[in-house]
This record gives sequence, C-alpha cells and structure tokens, in this order.
Amino acid sequence: MKHPVSILDSTLRDGAQGSGIAFSVEDKLQAVRVLDHLGVAYIEAGNPGSNPKDEEFFTRARSLPLEHAKLTSFGSTRRKGIRPEEDGNLQALLQAGTPCCTVFGKAWKFHVDWVLETTPEENFAMIEESCRFLKEHGKEVIFDAEHFFDGWKDDPSFAMQALEAAARGGADLLCLCDTNGGVFPEDVKRAMEEVAARFDLPIGAHFHEDCGMATANSILAVQYGAAQVQGTLLGFGERCGNANLSAVIGDLQCKLGYACIPQECIKLLAHSARELAAIANWDLPHGLPYVGEDAFSHKAGMHADGVLKTPRSFEHIDPYLVGNTRRFPASEISGRAVVLEKIHRVFPGMKLDAASARSVLEDIKALEAKGYQFEGADASFELLVRKRLQPFPPFFELLHYHIYTDYGLNKTGASATVKVKVGEELQLMAAEGNGPVNALDRALRKALEVFYPVLADVKLTDYKVRVLDSKSATAAGVRVLITSSARTGDSFTTVGVSGDVVAASWKALEDSMEYLLLKAGECR
Amino acid sequence: MKHPVSILDSTLRDGAQGSGIAFSVEDKLQAVRVLDHLGVAYIEAGNPGSNPKDEEFFTRARSLPLEHAKLTSFGSTRRKGIRPEEDGNLQALLQAGTPCCTVFGKAWKFHVDWVLETTPEENFAMIEESCRFLKEHGKEVIFDAEHFFDGWKDDPSFAMQALEAAARGGADLLCLCDTNGGVFPEDVKRAMEEVAARFDLPIGAHFHEDCGMATANSILAVQYGAAQVQGTLLGFGERCGNANLSAVIGDLQCKLGYACIPQECIKLLAHSARELAAIANWDLPHGLPYVGEDAFSHKAGMHADGVLKTPRSFEHIDPYLVGNTRRFPASEISGRAVVLEKIHRVFPGMKLDAASARSVLEDIKALEAKGYQFEGADASFELLVRKRLQPFPPFFELLHYHIYTDYGLNKTGASATVKVKVGEELQLMAAEGNGPVNALDRALRKALEVFYPVLADVKLTDYKVRVLDSKSATAAGVRVLITSSARTGDSFTTVGVSGDVVAASWKALEDSMEYLLLKAGECR
Repeated sequence: MKHPVSILDSTLRDGAQGSGIAFSVEDKLQAVRVLDHLGVAYIEAGNPGSNPKDEEFFTRARSLPLEHAKLTSFGSTRRKGIRPEEDGNLQALLQAGTPCCTVFGKAWKFHVDWVLETTPEENFAMIEESCRFLKEHGKEVIFDAEHFFDGWKDDPSFAMQALEAAARGGADLLCLCDTNGGVFPEDVKRAMEEVAARFDLPIGAHFHEDCGMATANSILAVQYGAAQVQGTLLGFGERCGNANLSAVIGDLQCKLGYACIPQECIKLLAHSARELAAIANWDLPHGLPYVGEDAFSHKAGMHADGVLKTPRSFEHIDPYLVGNTRRFPASEISGRAVVLEKIHRVFPGMKLDAASARSVLEDIKALEAKGYQFEGADASFELLVRKRLQPFPPFFELLHYHIYTDYGLNKTGASATVKVKVGEELQLMAAEGNGPVNALDRALRKALEVFYPVLADVKLTDYKVRVLDSKSATAAGVRVLITSSARTGDSFTTVGVSGDVVAASWKALEDSMEYLLLKAGECR
Repeated sequence: MKHPVSILDSTLRDGAQGSGIAFSVEDKLQAVRVLDHLGVAYIEAGNPGSNPKDEEFFTRARSLPLEHAKLTSFGSTRRKGIRPEEDGNLQALLQAGTPCCTVFGKAWKFHVDWVLETTPEENFAMIEESCRFLKEHGKEVIFDAEHFFDGWKDDPSFAMQALEAAARGGADLLCLCDTNGGVFPEDVKRAMEEVAARFDLPIGAHFHEDCGMATANSILAVQYGAAQVQGTLLGFGERCGNANLSAVIGDLQCKLGYACIPQECIKLLAHSARELAAIANWDLPHGLPYVGEDAFSHKAGMHADGVLKTPRSFEHIDPYLVGNTRRFPASEISGRAVVLEKIHRVFPGMKLDAASARSVLEDIKALEAKGYQFEGADASFELLVRKRLQPFPPFFELLHYHIYTDYGLNKTGASATVKVKVGEELQLMAAEGNGPVNALDRALRKALEVFYPVLADVKLTDYKVRVLDSKSATAAGVRVLITSSARTGDSFTTVGVSGDVVAASWKALEDSMEYLLLKAGECR
C-alpha cells in the first residue's frame, strides 16, 4: 500500500506570477470551484499581504462551499527585527480567514547574506516565531523552505536548521522548495532521504521547470516519501513555470498507484485542465501530457494502424481514464486506416473497395503536396470525400470576382464585385470591407443569400493565414483556414491554398458555404 | 572527464509527426542549416520510403554544405517474408544518399504478435538482415529499438534479443526507444545498467513526453552511460512530443558538464530555437526552459529585486550563456532599463535623458497594444528609435495605390498602380503579381528604383502573416513580418500591422525600403 499524497495547487498564487497570466477576482472564484471539483486537497489562492485584489478575493472566498479542498493563503515570515504581531504580512494571513497558511522562509545562507541581509540566527528566529504565531491563532501551517535544494547543496546544516526552526515553531508540514528550478533528480533523492531520516513531520515538495525536471522531481520526491506535491494544474508559474500538476496527478494516480485525488475525480482531469485554461484565457498546449487535445493523437500512419488494431500498441494509458479522447488527424504521413476511419465517420458502415479508398488517399496526398492540410479542417475533408465517392451537384458556381484595394486619393479600403450562377440564374453583387478578403466575403454572402437565406445563420468566427513557403516572399503560397459557426453553436473549419491570399480565402469560403448548405439539407 | 554525448535531432522526422506541424521542402532545407549551425551531430531528416516530399528533400539536401552534422534518413526494417534488396523502404533509404541511416525494429513481443503478426524469429531476422544490408552498402547504421522499455518490462530476454540481432547485423549504435512515452526514471536506470553490461556498442536513448519524463529520462540515460540522445529541438513529435533537446542540451552542457554540442555553439541555443520556431511558423512557448522568452523573466517584485541585487538569487544559470536575456515584465523601471539596453545596441554610448527614454518606451507600448511586436523586427525597431530621437527626413512619400484582384472573365491575378513622391518629383508605376501584395511590392520597387537604383540590390526573402484576433474572422487584424536580404548577404526584418493584409504589408515594405536606404547611406 503506497502512502497518500496531498496535492497543493498554487495556480492562483505562484501561477499568477507567470508572465502573461492575470486573474480577476471572478476568475479566481471560478478557478477555486474547478480545482475543488477535481479534488485537490489545498488551493493556495493568493498572497493577501502583497496584493489588494487578493484581500477582496479571500473575503468572498470564505463563503464558497468546498467539497474537497482547503484554502490556504501565502506570505513570507515576519520581517527582520520586529515581532510577528507587528508584521503586516502575517496579520494579512490571519485576516484572509483561511484554515491553512503557507509561510515561506529562507533555507539558503547565500540569500540570508545577500538578499535578506541579516544573520542566520535572526533568519531562524523569523521562521520559528512566524510559524508559532500562526499556530497560536489556530491555523494549520505549511512551511515552504525557499531555495531548500540550493541551500542544502551549499550548506546542508544551514538548510536543516531552517527546517528545524519551522518544526520548533509547530509547522504541520515542511515543504522543500526548488525556487530557482535548478535541481536534478539525483540530488532530490539524496535530500529527501536525509530530511526524511531527520524529521517525523510530513514532507512536501515544490519544483520549477527551468531544467525540464519539475514533473520528474515531484514523482521522485513522492517515491522517497513526500506526502505533498505543490504545483499548478497547467504548469503556470514564474519563469518556466511550476510543476505541472496535470502530469503529476496523471503519473501518480494512473501509472504509479498513489492516491492523490479521489479516484472518482481522475476522469475529470482533462476537462478540469480545459476549464482552467478557459478561465485564464490561455490556449492549452495541444501536447500537454494526459490533458492536451493531442495527448492521444496518432498522426503517423503506422501508429494509427497499430492503435486501430490494439490501442495499447501506441498508448501508455487509456485516454478515457482521464477524460481525454483518441484522435487521428488526417495527414500526409497517415495511412489508409486513418482515412478509412474518417470516411466511416462521414458515412458510417460504408463498404469501400480498395480502389476507392486508394483514390481518396491519393487525392489527399496530391492536395497536401500543394500545401493543403486537413487536420483541423474536417469540413473540407468531408466535402472532398463526398465529391469523390458520391454524385455532388454544385450549389453554385463562381463566374468571376473583381476586388479594388485602395490607399490615398478618394478612399482607403477595399470593395469587391462577385458574380455567381445558381441553377440558370445569375447574380452580381458588390460589397465593401476593410481589406480585399473581407470585401469578397461580404459580396459573396450577399449574392448567395438571395438563393439560400439559411446562409444568414452562419458567421465566420475564425480566420487563419499561414505562409507556406515564406522564402518566396510576397509571391509565397498561403494556406487559409476559416472557422464558421452556425446559430446552433455548431462550428466547422475549411481550408484553401493558393499563391494569392484572396484566392486561398475564396476556396475556404466556398467550402464553408457548400458545407453549410449540405448540412442544412438544401436542394440543388 | 565525462563521456561525450552526440545529439540526434529528429525535428524533420519524428517532429513532423507532431499534430499541426508541416514542413515544406524549403522549410526542411532551412531547418537543416539552423540545426547544423547549432552543432548537433545527426539530423534525422525524413522517412523517404513513406513520403514523396522527403525524396525531393534528400535530393536537394545532398548538396548542402554541412559543418557539424551528418544527415540520416529513417525507415523501418524490411517487411516480413521478403529479402532486404526487395524492400522498397530499404531501397529508399539507400537512395536518400545520406551517410547514415536509422532503421527501426520491434523490441516488444506484444507488437510482434499483434501489430507485425509474425514470429519472434522472423522479427529478429528482419532486424539483423536490414542492418547488414545497409552496412554492406557503406552506411553508418543507427538501430532504433522501438518500444524497447515496454518490451523489456514485459519480456527482458525478447528485448535483448532484438538488440543482439542488430548488433549481429553490424549496427553502429543501439538506441533504446520509449515509443509510447510511458517509462519512468527508475526503470530507465535499471534498463541502461543491464544493456550497458551486455553490449560493447554505444547506446542511445529516445524518449517521449507523455508522462512529462522525456527530459529527465534523457539526462538519466546519459548519466548511466548513453552516448547519444535523440529528440527534437523544440519538443515537436507524435502525441505529447519528443524529448525537448533545447532543455536536454542546456542541462547536459550548462549544468552537468557533458559535451554534446561544440562549446562555442551553446550561446546559439536560444537563437536557434527561435529560428526553428519561425520556420515552423509556431509560437515558441514563453516558458520553454533555457530558450523561452520568459525563461529568465522575473515578474514577482521580490524576485526582480533579488535578481537586481545578485542574479544568482533567482537564476539557475546566466541567461546570456545560452543566448537568452533577463526580462522584468512587470516592472515599469526595469521595462525602461530593457528599452535603454536596446537603444544602446542601436546607438552605443548614447546619453539619453529620462524624458526621451520614456517617450520611446511609450511609443513602443502604444504600438504593442495595436499588435506590433519588435522582437524579430529589429530594423523596424531601429527606425522607430531613430525617428523619435533624431531628425529623419523621409526618403519618399506614398501618395496612393490601387490594386485590382481578378478571378474569371478575362484574367486571374492582380495588378497594382502606385504613385510616390521623392523630393518634388512624382512617379506613377504599375505592375502585376500573383496576388495583391505581390503586385504592390513590384510596383513600389519599380517606382522607387527610378530614384534609388540601390534598391535593386535587395530582395524580399521571407514574408509571414499572423492573424492577431482571429475571432474577428476575415475582418481580423494581421501582423506582417518581411525579411529582406541585400546582395552582401545581410538581412533584416520589418513589421506592419493593420486590419487589412495589404495595408499591413505596405507598412512592412515601407520600413524595409527606408531601412535599406538608410544603411546604404542614401541622401534625401
């Protein structure tokens, strides 16, 4: 039986120290709900002494009903030369009203000499008295030994004395912090062994990602006895970030058999990560272990074939265990099996002879050689398959467009005229826009809505341009991806490629209109 | 003295299996230059048997002059039941014409039973004969033991027999691959010890990031004797990605004293990572260890203060060692220090009063709020600083442009007219192009070359478009980056932002012309 491990999430404190991360009070309250729901034991939610927004947050957070988590507030030990009750920071920790407080003090003599500029004795007194003060006010106290690993490598006895001071002050848990992110697993192991031999208290571990070691160090610390891992669910944090708890929790719970969140919560892992990313207005990296959109995505043909035969061949765990899904992006290096699987999503149960499958595959390869990419452009992929395998009478035909783009003289901006043919009817329309593509898009819609009013229900919501061979400079080919959303909330993406950004956009626009008309069941 | 470690970068092979990553042949040739310049020993550049684009690449790559790296092509062992010389994949490896070939074979019995569907004996014969075939054709052979760690945990003797088959076939290096990314450091250590005790050949290690362990496992493998690490410079790769070589190289070379790239190249690490990200048109994550923009960025006030007192207090290495820089994003004062540092790069030794420095800083902030970004657009930055701090009479003035973009009827393509004023003279010119920006670029050059023949010496060599607020769809703002190269080989990059791709391109073009005229010492 492996020992239980408590998770302390510091997204709202250390995570908020990451560059580009900013949480409003509302964001923080929402994030607390997500983390509590996921089942972490502690939510380190702010530094009330240094941030006025955090004071408001703690006032409001007090009334949140929490199922699994305790809130903890974070702050430094008292300043040098004063008594704890005179210290504004420690008072702010009490006022935050959380059941637990995390207080950090120095475990590296170098910092005491050069940053704090005080004596070792005063440093240890600051730690001991601050812990005792918080304990006397009824708090559970986590002592974060800042720079523990650097301090221990530099002067082991100094680092141990810092922990001893906290223990004397009554701290409930001693957390070893690698504040600068420079420690490697072999040193973590030796330090954990020494500390565990010396203290009866539970030990925690807090790592940063500067050497790419935060996850490995966290796991190793647990394997050598740590009872708590501190980190942030998405890896947010100062510089390269903190230990990424989505990976740590996945590893500990799914692979190594440690209980760190309630077992029924593990299936919420991917969803919680995505919710938190949305709250932070941050694009979750697709390759994030366990929780990223591509964490179980198989692009190479041989891998996809293997997974279709037996998932274990190229998956280290079942993606559904952590609430993620398996994906097969279509691509030039994926083989027939993936294309077949995708065709079957469009036409379930369709019997495909080898020749038809090969011909679709060859179409895809030829288009990809021109710069097309169907990963993330499922609607264009579906149109391609339908056009190849079924009769597909056109909804409309583009006869011509002309676009004027002007700067200076009478006007600055763009206008477009478009002529389309639907059945035997012709329609010429014109529109203006802030650039040539926008003008073309508007004119085309105006022309087609005459025949297909349903098009008014769809909006373009995303437009991406990628230059394919940027070395040909302004004559380079471009790939345009367009995402359209219907009023129902459904959205789909189409792709176009050309040497001209307008023509590439036209192709993606054409696909988006065709796809919508197809789904709306329009007749031709 | 620690043993040397060779780096095999597989960005162009395993990296290209990452979702969303697509390289053109041009991109691949450029990436080879970047990786060679950085000093990696092997560049695994493609799978010629499975991808027609790779065949063209290898043909062109043969004539690239490489300083540090060897190219290696990648493919599977022969198919079951045929002779090596009958196997198209192995023939494609030979035809690629690289000095080295990486050939992969199965080291996990489960895969042989369920995916290959053959006998262990045939599997080992496939490995042995494929290695021997390539050796007999004069190739250096790296054997990638696919699924080695899963295979070894499942049936150690089977995994060892796969390695023995490769050794009998004459392989030069045996690489242990964790294809599914599920192995933990303690198992890596034990496996490395067993393999090292059994084989005299050099051992390599190849990890994936599915458990967040790829960097730690790579380092540990080296500490237990591995002579080669395989990975990708930016961590690109199937699912969660491959071992991130920027972290692995940083750790091994800067922290642990292993030589893996030439010592004089280590200062290129951050720059190379950024160049490769630009080639892949990928946003380098800001927190990437060693090379990310925020890897040495100090947001918390206490950290910034500490670093200003003594950098070692919150930095695990000197950022300049790997060509990165320290940043203070949250601090107004240090924000000014950073801008001053940049101004001094343009005007060394310039004395700047506080008001001028603040005014440049405010200009930059205002432009950045509009979507400008001057990192990677040094020429536009220099022009901005010069225009603010010195008299800067214009070289030319744009009076107006008109661009016609047509599809259908008489013609398909674009033509532009441009009217410029130089001194008191006017010039109207027209040109055609394959799209509106290309036509504008050509017309502008024709008009300005009348006055400034030196402009004929400069070519646009790179053109990138990024949509800033892609949610506004075709009306979204875009940022255009243009790189221009003079006949001397010097190149520089300029930036423009607008709601219209043509207007954004115009701004970047204008800067590029002005910058070249400034550097050429033209009079106005």
